Amino acid sequence: MNAWTGYLQRERTRHLEELKELLRIPSVSSSSAHKKDVEAAARWVADALRRAGMEHVQVMETGGHPVVYGDWLHAPGKPTALIYGHYDVQPAEPLELWETPPFEPDIRDGKIYARGATDDKAQFFIHIKAAEALLGTAGELPVNLKFCIEGEEEIASPHLPAFLEKHADMLKADLVVLSDGPMLNKDTPSICVGLRGLCGFELTVRGPSTDLHSGLYGGGVANPIAALAQLLASMRHPDGRIAVEGFYDGVHELTEEDHRRYRLIPFDEAALLRDLDVPELHGEKGYTFHERTTARPTLEINGIGGGHQGEGLKTIIPSSAFAKISCRLVDRQDPDEIMDKIEAHIRKHKPPGVTVSMKRTDRGRPFVISPDHPYIQAAARAFEQGFGKAPLFVRSGGSIPIVESFSRVLEAPVVMMDFGLPGENLHAPNEHFHLDHFDKGIATMCHFWEQF
Amino acid sequence: MNAWTGYLQRERTRHLEELKELLRIPSVSSSSAHKKDVEAAARWVADALRRAGMEHVQVMETGGHPVVYGDWLHAPGKPTALIYGHYDVQPAEPLELWETPPFEPDIRDGKIYARGATDDKAQFFIHIKAAEALLGTAGELPVNLKFCIEGEEEIASPHLPAFLEKHADMLKADLVVLSDGPMLNKDTPSICVGLRGLCGFELTVRGPSTDLHSGLYGGGVANPIAALAQLLASMRHPDGRIAVEGFYDGVHELTEEDHRRYRLIPFDEAALLRDLDVPELHGEKGYTFHERTTARPTLEINGIGGGHQGEGLKTIIPSSAFAKISCRLVDRQDPDEIMDKIEAHIRKHKPPGVTVSMKRTDRGRPFVISPDHPYIQAAARAFEQGFGKAPLFVRSGGSIPIVESFSRVLEAPVVMMDFGLPGENLHAPNEHFHLDHFDKGIATMCHFWEQF
Repeated sequence: MNAWTGYLQRERTRHLEELKELLRIPSVSSSSAHKKDVEAAARWVADALRRAGMEHVQVMETGGHPVVYGDWLHAPGKPTALIYGHYDVQPAEPLELWETPPFEPDIRDGKIYARGATDDKAQFFIHIKAAEALLGTAGELPVNLKFCIEGEEEIASPHLPAFLEKHADMLKADLVVLSDGPMLNKDTPSICVGLRGLCGFELTVRGPSTDLHSGLYGGGVANPIAALAQLLASMRHPDGRIAVEGFYDGVHELTEEDHRRYRLIPFDEAALLRDLDVPELHGEKGYTFHERTTARPTLEINGIGGGHQGEGLKTIIPSSAFAKISCRLVDRQDPDEIMDKIEAHIRKHKPPGVTVSMKRTDRGRPFVISPDHPYIQAAARAFEQGFGKAPLFVRSGGSIPIVESFSRVLEAPVVMMDFGLPGENLHAPNEHFHLDHFDKGIATMCHFWEQF
Repeated sequence: MNAWTGYLQRERTRHLEELKELLRIPSVSSSSAHKKDVEAAARWVADALRRAGMEHVQVMETGGHPVVYGDWLHAPGKPTALIYGHYDVQPAEPLELWETPPFEPDIRDGKIYARGATDDKAQFFIHIKAAEALLGTAGELPVNLKFCIEGEEEIASPHLPAFLEKHADMLKADLVVLSDGPMLNKDTPSICVGLRGLCGFELTVRGPSTDLHSGLYGGGVANPIAALAQLLASMRHPDGRIAVEGFYDGVHELTEEDHRRYRLIPFDEAALLRDLDVPELHGEKGYTFHERTTARPTLEINGIGGGHQGEGLKTIIPSSAFAKISCRLVDRQDPDEIMDKIEAHIRKHKPPGVTVSMKRTDRGRPFVISPDHPYIQAAARAFEQGFGKAPLFVRSGGSIPIVESFSRVLEAPVVMMDFGLPGENLHAPNEHFHLDHFDKGIATMCHFWEQF
């Protein structure tokens, strides 16, 4: 038995009390009314890092909510790992749906309930406690550690990329580790080896300067909604493939080994159909649901509007129509290049009689790391020791732009070691975190660092 | 010189005073606050018919605002004409934009200004005064006349079709005459020989029971907006033709003579482009703007909505999307048959992964009469005498469902003899009617009846 195992058992009650302290701070980053609470949470994290033995601990200005930094760099010749997390939380409303108040942490059925429990307070706290346990028992760490805990993740990390660029030397690391999501399910630990990128835009089609009477002008003037529908339809083949020229450049075809790994992921299609209440799943031919939603890029229309949307019929040719569109990107797809290609497609396919304009909005690059990367393999062994079961390698269909920022700015692989679970109500009432994952998570991290 | 010419000159001042009386009554049919005014207008019209020598004058219940009926049936062996008009008016708001109050008729620059002046009080009053002039001078009419003046035209005549069916015997006629629109322009009298029909529906595409995260599900679940766009695009060929199978059944191809008549209609494309602020006109190949908007059917998308329409991007697959669509129909196209064909098209082209529902709303049959019909030719000669210029035969792209109702229920041709002018602000502030058209209109009608 490792020395730190006994330490963690002895100190467990204190650790949970500390976690409760952190969960009591309503560090809602989106609300100016909670600015002082966000600052208090930052100071609390700094204190926790100091207690764990970290040095150079500082609460650093970013232009928005601060970043908390701390390090321990006394393992010469060993790699340096940067641990990312965030101490800010989503708003807790609607409060009446909480069984116990969101900022009065309550332990029941082996879970701790509070806003921010799984997203992300308990998860980054695991890293602090793993460092504390190793340092507290061995007197040193098998790795150089840096912590970078931010306070703006729930508002899309507006200041983090600039912070990374500005402090790149200080944050320099050989790998980045974060725990800010769920594993596949309670029986299946998993390591996330891919995130999709994102680019978004608004498309506006303009026709006549005012709505026109469809009796007097119908048939003689282009209809902006019809033109928009035609443009949108032109962007996708009926079979689900995106029809924009060059869209798939930079997308890696899945190998047989990739397909095999995807087949390991448990999937209950009937349950999903019931859950979503759709008649059938639909997507690009030749790929499974998990492949389509994580390893393949998409072009989704998120919103559309134009003309008369009220009750009854209004016989007009509307003056304009718009759509909001976003693409999820994978592998080497670059959001700016994709937008250029879409813009070229729109120019080429613009129907006559209307003008079209396009406004680019969000952007984020995809992230992908090979399951065969040594750090990923080390993480897999650590999970197997911590959870008693080898993890699956999965890709997520979502986008966490800062992951790609870390990977690009610090030129370091990012290892996503998620200890949360699906159904822990992140961003919803009664958010919670499973305490056995708190224990297994710390153990997994200790096993991970011991391999260095 | 006809006897009625002198009569009309002598009585002109009194006639205009009478018209002013009628225009002073704020008979706004859409407003329950004006119910008494609408009734007062009906009684006023009944009195005016009696003064003109009509018999069997009655204010008849309809379930809504009353219809005023009156007749003169003492021309045995002669045809019977039914004159349709409406004594109700649009609301006058916004009042501050009127130069003189809407219900205080004011004559300036040879025009009479008041709400309802051109739509339709002066125009049906012309028919009463023509009958009065003929009867007052000759002691008899060259034709049997029936008047049917309703009070719900501005609220889409909800009770008129049932009224026609119920009183078909009483209203039986060999032709129906109405004056409730504008002629082409001041230099160009015109007779409207066609109106487009209408059918409308709402199309709803449903996907998952709630909006889904486009990161987690994007690519694996059909997007209702994309499915709707695909369906809408499938209904129209890019060149403007409707792609619904059988849509053009019952549409008469224009003859060389039809094309020739269309070419007589003055058309300033540059002015229209400036007016509408569109880069170019667009429509079905092989037809001019006037042909496209009056002799050809259309399928227009009047409104569309779905997903996120607020500011910024919201990365969802929306739960549903809808479109409001209406078709203008011509010739023998039947609105119910067209809806059946569209429904079959939608069933056939429904993209996978979504469900589609369709709700039929408005419907009205098209109306068309040959310019060579003897009554239309008689009307043309009357215009030539009344206005000093032969009229053009035009078709309107709009829909007046009651015209088709009259023609179908009474099995009689409908002769549309419009004395209004474009720009007379119907449905807008400062509505007016040109008084020289008041005089020429009465003369035209006297000439028309004298041909019987």
